[in-house]
Amino acid sequence: MSDMTTATEARTRGYVEPGFERVRDEFERMLGVDPGYGAQVTAIWRGRTVVDLVGGRGTESDSITGVFSVTKGIAATVVGLLVTREQLRLDAAVAEYWPEFGAAGKAAITVREALSHRAGIVGVPERFTVDELVDSSLAAAKIAAHPPLWQPGSAHGYHAITIGVLMEELVRRVSGRSLQRIYESEIRAPREIDFHLGLPSSEEYRYHPVLPPVVPSDSVPPPTPSTDGLQALAFNVLHSSLPPTAGDMGPNNPAVRAAGTASVGGVGSARGLAAVYAAVLGDEATAPLLSTETIGEMSRQHAFGLDRVLGFTTSFGIGFMKPHPAMDFGSYRAFGHDGAGGALAFADPLHDLAFGYIPIPMQLPGGADPKAITLSQAIRSCIREV
Amino acid sequence: MSDMTTATEARTRGYVEPGFERVRDEFERMLGVDPGYGAQVTAIWRGRTVVDLVGGRGTESDSITGVFSVTKGIAATVVGLLVTREQLRLDAAVAEYWPEFGAAGKAAITVREALSHRAGIVGVPERFTVDELVDSSLAAAKIAAHPPLWQPGSAHGYHAITIGVLMEELVRRVSGRSLQRIYESEIRAPREIDFHLGLPSSEEYRYHPVLPPVVPSDSVPPPTPSTDGLQALAFNVLHSSLPPTAGDMGPNNPAVRAAGTASVGGVGSARGLAAVYAAVLGDEATAPLLSTETIGEMSRQHAFGLDRVLGFTTSFGIGFMKPHPAMDFGSYRAFGHDGAGGALAFADPLHDLAFGYIPIPMQLPGGADPKAITLSQAIRSCIREV
Amino acid sequence: MSDMTTATEARTRGYVEPGFERVRDEFERMLGVDPGYGAQVTAIWRGRTVVDLVGGRGTESDSITGVFSVTKGIAATVVGLLVTREQLRLDAAVAEYWPEFGAAGKAAITVREALSHRAGIVGVPERFTVDELVDSSLAAAKIAAHPPLWQPGSAHGYHAITIGVLMEELVRRVSGRSLQRIYESEIRAPREIDFHLGLPSSEEYRYHPVLPPVVPSDSVPPPTPSTDGLQALAFNVLHSSLPPTAGDMGPNNPAVRAAGTASVGGVGSARGLAAVYAAVLGDEATAPLLSTETIGEMSRQHAFGLDRVLGFTTSFGIGFMKPHPAMDFGSYRAFGHDGAGGALAFADPLHDLAFGYIPIPMQLPGGADPKAITLSQAIRSCIREV
Repeated sequence: MSDMTTATEARTRGYVEPGFERVRDEFERMLGVDPGYGAQVTAIWRGRTVVDLVGGRGTESDSITGVFSVTKGIAATVVGLLVTREQLRLDAAVAEYWPEFGAAGKAAITVREALSHRAGIVGVPERFTVDELVDSSLAAAKIAAHPPLWQPGSAHGYHAITIGVLMEELVRRVSGRSLQRIYESEIRAPREIDFHLGLPSSEEYRYHPVLPPVVPSDSVPPPTPSTDGLQALAFNVLHSSLPPTAGDMGPNNPAVRAAGTASVGGVGSARGLAAVYAAVLGDEATAPLLSTETIGEMSRQHAFGLDRVLGFTTSFGIGFMKPHPAMDFGSYRAFGHDGAGGALAFADPLHDLAFGYIPIPMQLPGGADPKAITLSQAIRSCIREV
Repeated sequence: MSDMTTATEARTRGYVEPGFERVRDEFERMLGVDPGYGAQVTAIWRGRTVVDLVGGRGTESDSITGVFSVTKGIAATVVGLLVTREQLRLDAAVAEYWPEFGAAGKAAITVREALSHRAGIVGVPERFTVDELVDSSLAAAKIAAHPPLWQPGSAHGYHAITIGVLMEELVRRVSGRSLQRIYESEIRAPREIDFHLGLPSSEEYRYHPVLPPVVPSDSVPPPTPSTDGLQALAFNVLHSSLPPTAGDMGPNNPAVRAAGTASVGGVGSARGLAAVYAAVLGDEATAPLLSTETIGEMSRQHAFGLDRVLGFTTSFGIGFMKPHPAMDFGSYRAFGHDGAGGALAFADPLHDLAFGYIPIPMQLPGGADPKAITLSQAIRSCIREV
Repeated sequence: MSDMTTATEARTRGYVEPGFERVRDEFERMLGVDPGYGAQVTAIWRGRTVVDLVGGRGTESDSITGVFSVTKGIAATVVGLLVTREQLRLDAAVAEYWPEFGAAGKAAITVREALSHRAGIVGVPERFTVDELVDSSLAAAKIAAHPPLWQPGSAHGYHAITIGVLMEELVRRVSGRSLQRIYESEIRAPREIDFHLGLPSSEEYRYHPVLPPVVPSDSVPPPTPSTDGLQALAFNVLHSSLPPTAGDMGPNNPAVRAAGTASVGGVGSARGLAAVYAAVLGDEATAPLLSTETIGEMSRQHAFGLDRVLGFTTSFGIGFMKPHPAMDFGSYRAFGHDGAGGALAFADPLHDLAFGYIPIPMQLPGGADPKAITLSQAIRSCIREV
């Protein structure tokens, strides 16, 4: 269907469609700057893969690894499936589906509020164990007992761990099935997508562990966050000085990636990530996974401004993260999610674009790798000119 | 009535009342710093013109030119007239007056929300043509079809173009007349005010084109905003790299200034701007144009904080812009609007003050010229001491 | 009960429990840096005084002085007492208890909104006289007549003076008694707490006047705030260039400290401040002053973000100030208040900790002394390790 060019330069493998050469140039420039850096990047435009590159050592186009919070956006597509089928109503109270949640002053909190990081349910003082996060009905029971940590409506703040638990429990209550099972049977398997919520043991041999970021020797360490503030609570490290990604809640723990926890447990490739968002949008040959109405609702910004947990500006739709001027990963219609290691995946209906990106090792400063945003901008710029 | 002094210094013409000499000194200092700068500034205190100065080359006290968004505040006085007459209710749904607006999830949006930059109706992906903005019922029809771009209540952001369309369409639906016609017949003509929403051809010979700002040769260009974000949408330049003021939507387009579009098409002098706001406040001899209740409602802050479109802090009443600590153009009761070229006009009920200012050429960094704010501060300081 | 060590070093007097030596080290380091600095600091952990230090010249452990807005948190405990007794309902309209308050568009404002700095009732243009603040039913009558200064819901901003008037009037309307009398008879006297809302003349001889801050000769003066903005209104200095703490509204005015105005008039020692918050939490032997439900409601964040009055980020519960990342005085469950001179007092249920701190002279930059936050962090760190 499309003319494809193959990179002759040693650093990158894969291809870009004619008109997208600038993306490869930009990627090679990045690889040249940092010999320790590698990444996968895939872009699907109008249902066609127009960029599919891998560069650097330690990763190949079919390598799979953990992507931390990028998982949240993938999990949100399952929520969207239930919304599209009218099994889940965004304006219903969470307690309508999950009565125990109504305890401690949370009876009026809606699905819409809870899944847009506005409900103030960011953690529990007794912390979650890994077992509770893996079998998340246990974590959900803990959440249900606690009051909101801020008056709903007074702020939004990143529900780093709990949003996964909320999505899992809501899906379980509404459908009687696990979020991961629905993802596997209705989204991943039919399309043979290489991104897993629950890595099967048969694929374990392909797992590349997430590697910690390389900290420049002359860098000034960032200030240590409070060990008893909302951020510590949200990252499940209350009273602990561990960085949240160093614990065993992450995908390097085999139990977590086998469970595929909706907050941080997904495993796959950039191709896989792009494929999920391409399925959400559909193409000429395939109906979109989610209805236009559902995409419209879930991709609409529901929270914006100074994040009470993270301490910087964030923007969220329902389940999904939104771009904003300080984080320009897509157009005003884009929706997706970044992850602690620098990975990024999103759909952008304005450009009919799906995008996946996974770097190795983890890239500083945390959250969407600035290089991912630059690559996204290059791709969108090429689309405008094609 | 008042003692007037005439500037003997070559740089400024016009007069200041005794007690306001410091305003002229400040203005002359500004003119001395930049030989390319000129401006008109007028202040009316307790119904009396206490400052009426013009300085620099290229402008005279009766020169008229375009003032971009300063027009929004003038247009808002027409909205206020309908509110005062109880023809328009701020807490009514927009769709009550304009049923088509209720489409796509906008049925519950109130006039209050829509006219305070909170409704998330900042633009349309297909862009507006100039013809549609000039005959704004066409632009209004486009707006009506689209869903809000953020969940109402989740943010506010500058409706740079659309707030003019919203005001025009609401006035049309409520009164059966155009906003411009009401302005002309009920506000401008009876008072012979030299500020026009719809410049008549008989006055065209007086129009001074808006001149682009002088960019210092050693200045670092600001970062280019995204061409597919909400800001591009709001300034009607989606997919374009044009600066929003460079296109033909502005007052230098004869069709735009002949229409006097409520968002950016007003034309006049600083005297004219001050005269409108003086009429709003009234004086001993003349009843205020708007009722005390209407001024109270429309001048009350309805939005504050990080602007989702502009990316910096803004504060809005209904139709009007409000001062805030980072933009101290008036007291806590002041209301008005600035414009892209640096012009500024407002009323300040606390000081019984009306103010108009128009610089040439356009002044950086855009929005209210910092010099206008300094002049306003000097005037308010003189009032305290008189 | 506990082993106590006595400071042998000349600079500090008092004691720290074993395990809390680091707090004294930190305090002595601070005293060493600035020979003009002195302070009292007291921490009560699980009902036991674990830190009780005084250092520097000019203050002793039983010295009493004014603490400005720290008073607000102490006054809020009286509000909490009425909430615990179900005499005052947070979700009732203020006007239900105080009908005159319903004037000028304020009928729907709830106690919850009004006491969390969200109602936009920050001052009156005619200013309050000191007499009106001392006999605050007069100030309350002034407040009742005015419309809100921003649309409730559009912002929050520090009600520097008015929150005290609101608390006093609500308590008076609900109970028929003054806030200060309830504090004296039900909180202070039974526990012999050395913090007074209304210093009796018999204790006047002990009063140490608040001393102005020492401004370094090479310091750049901060920008002068507008004399006609919301901040000037909130600090009751509209049209005046006086700094708000220099006037006679403060505790150095004998009439103010005799009245013990709820906004700024409290007088006492750090021991006294810690004792109030320890009483709020209770201990093994004593029931908490406020019910768990009341503490949960009043200590929950109700406002967060850019403060419309102060121009920086603040966070408030009901009556109380909350810690946040830029002001880390306690855990996410902590609640208390700081004061203009640098004093700070709070309860932290997560750590079962009560804390009081009063420096002399007033410390820059205003608000909670950064040294107080450092001491609080040291204490919380010791608790984790004990």
